[in-house]
Amino acid sequence: MKELGFFDGEFINLDETKVSLEDRGYQFGDGIYEAAKVYNGKCFALDRHLERCIRSLRELQIPVTYTNDELTAIHEDIIAKSQINDGVIYFQITRGTAPRTHFFPDKVVPHLSMTIRPSLVHEDWQTSGIQTLWAEDIRWLRCDIKTINLLGNVLAKQKAHAKGFHEAIQFRKDTNLVTEGSSSNFFIVKDDIIWTHPLNNLILKGITRSILLEECAPQLGLTVVEKAFTPEFAAGADEAFVTSTSLEVTPVISISGKKIGHGVPGKITKQLLAAYKALVKADCYR
Amino acid sequence: MKELGFFDGEFINLDETKVSLEDRGYQFGDGIYEAAKVYNGKCFALDRHLERCIRSLRELQIPVTYTNDELTAIHEDIIAKSQINDGVIYFQITRGTAPRTHFFPDKVVPHLSMTIRPSLVHEDWQTSGIQTLWAEDIRWLRCDIKTINLLGNVLAKQKAHAKGFHEAIQFRKDTNLVTEGSSSNFFIVKDDIIWTHPLNNLILKGITRSILLEECAPQLGLTVVEKAFTPEFAAGADEAFVTSTSLEVTPVISISGKKIGHGVPGKITKQLLAAYKALVKADCYR
Repeated sequence: MKELGFFDGEFINLDETKVSLEDRGYQFGDGIYEAAKVYNGKCFALDRHLERCIRSLRELQIPVTYTNDELTAIHEDIIAKSQINDGVIYFQITRGTAPRTHFFPDKVVPHLSMTIRPSLVHEDWQTSGIQTLWAEDIRWLRCDIKTINLLGNVLAKQKAHAKGFHEAIQFRKDTNLVTEGSSSNFFIVKDDIIWTHPLNNLILKGITRSILLEECAPQLGLTVVEKAFTPEFAAGADEAFVTSTSLEVTPVISISGKKIGHGVPGKITKQLLAAYKALVKADCYR
Repeated sequence: MKELGFFDGEFINLDETKVSLEDRGYQFGDGIYEAAKVYNGKCFALDRHLERCIRSLRELQIPVTYTNDELTAIHEDIIAKSQINDGVIYFQITRGTAPRTHFFPDKVVPHLSMTIRPSLVHEDWQTSGIQTLWAEDIRWLRCDIKTINLLGNVLAKQKAHAKGFHEAIQFRKDTNLVTEGSSSNFFIVKDDIIWTHPLNNLILKGITRSILLEECAPQLGLTVVEKAFTPEFAAGADEAFVTSTSLEVTPVISISGKKIGHGVPGKITKQLLAAYKALVKADCYR
């Protein structure tokens, strides 16, 4: 079992340096990424990740130079070569390397880089729930694109991390509406209804979010409202949770020191987590 | 004369690859930059650039691992080694390389990269003025930090570039107030008074902007008001111009097809440009 990298067609060790100073990913954050979870040697929901990857590229007008089949094969290859059965594949495409200009340079070829590292789901967090922190959402107005311009997310996460919290829950100051976590989508449950921010330019269409809304909630006969709400409304919720590829469905038991509901993982949250885990099992452990 | 790079203490050719896939500059845009103009073999206003660089690092809590004297020496060395007399030195510091986590990793060492390329001031643009385009400002809410999270700027510039314009002038949709260009500060002149956006989280404290406000305008006995204004107010201005290290002071003669004043470079704009050029001359051509 061995952490491994990949750059433009070549498998590399993670201590090899392949990136140019003038890669636009390095000078502008001009690129997109995905991170897929590997369970039992299989990539979960890879089709959804690749679909979103293509959308991100299109939104930034970065040429698509790989087919989905090729990208799928590279994911399978890096799992096989690394022999990592439970891990995360991080996957990034930048616009390419060119002398620095803000506008898009002509005739650049995108760079594809990838890493695989072992990683286990924090089942302890899923059992106990996590404590979180409110943070102002200061990010740009195209959070629907999964770009590597992540400083807003980084600063929010760090703010939480520095105080011993596991996630920052962001809200827009101008509207006083909750958007999402720094690396997760955010949900509350109130009166048996699940609330989450609607898809628009302010949040990412998370893969786990989509699976929950399209598969788990209908299976369980649960009602979802995609509508923005205030931090005050969230504080009065019965349950709260975050979703992401690595967190799956993780209960949130407090925000900025204030307990959500009884301060323990909620009933509906636990149902959704179990339904999600069942999908992973059906897909990766057949 | 030769384009040259520099990475962590070593001069390199620009086709050498020194950057790791897991440099946080590459995966998060977690870094800051400066670009200084070289005239006649000398860096103009380098002290101001270094002062801003240190502030940017502090704001992002990236450790400062070089003294200003060291950074100055590296700038002088790269000019000498490249033998480029008229060019731009691009200069970037990222948080360092570590396995990917949103929060700041422990014990990482920042990376310093630098490039020097020949570059001449567009004196033709200064003589004729440039045509520009309005663009919505969709950037994050810490535009006062000179980070490499530049996709908002890139997309605005590209929007202008694709339509044959030289710069995008950005405005915030929520407030309908003009902020700055995609890689410049923006000014208008109305009734002999110079207007520009005040320093806050929405604009960068441009070096050329500072020099104009602190040195050129007082010299010329001109009044400056640092106050935000609407696109409509700007459209009715007598003159407009942008400032940046590479544009110096460049007249704006139209925005989105609408002429500013008589559609020619304005009187006060030309005075400011001449005063700025005199400072450059006094500093770099003694």
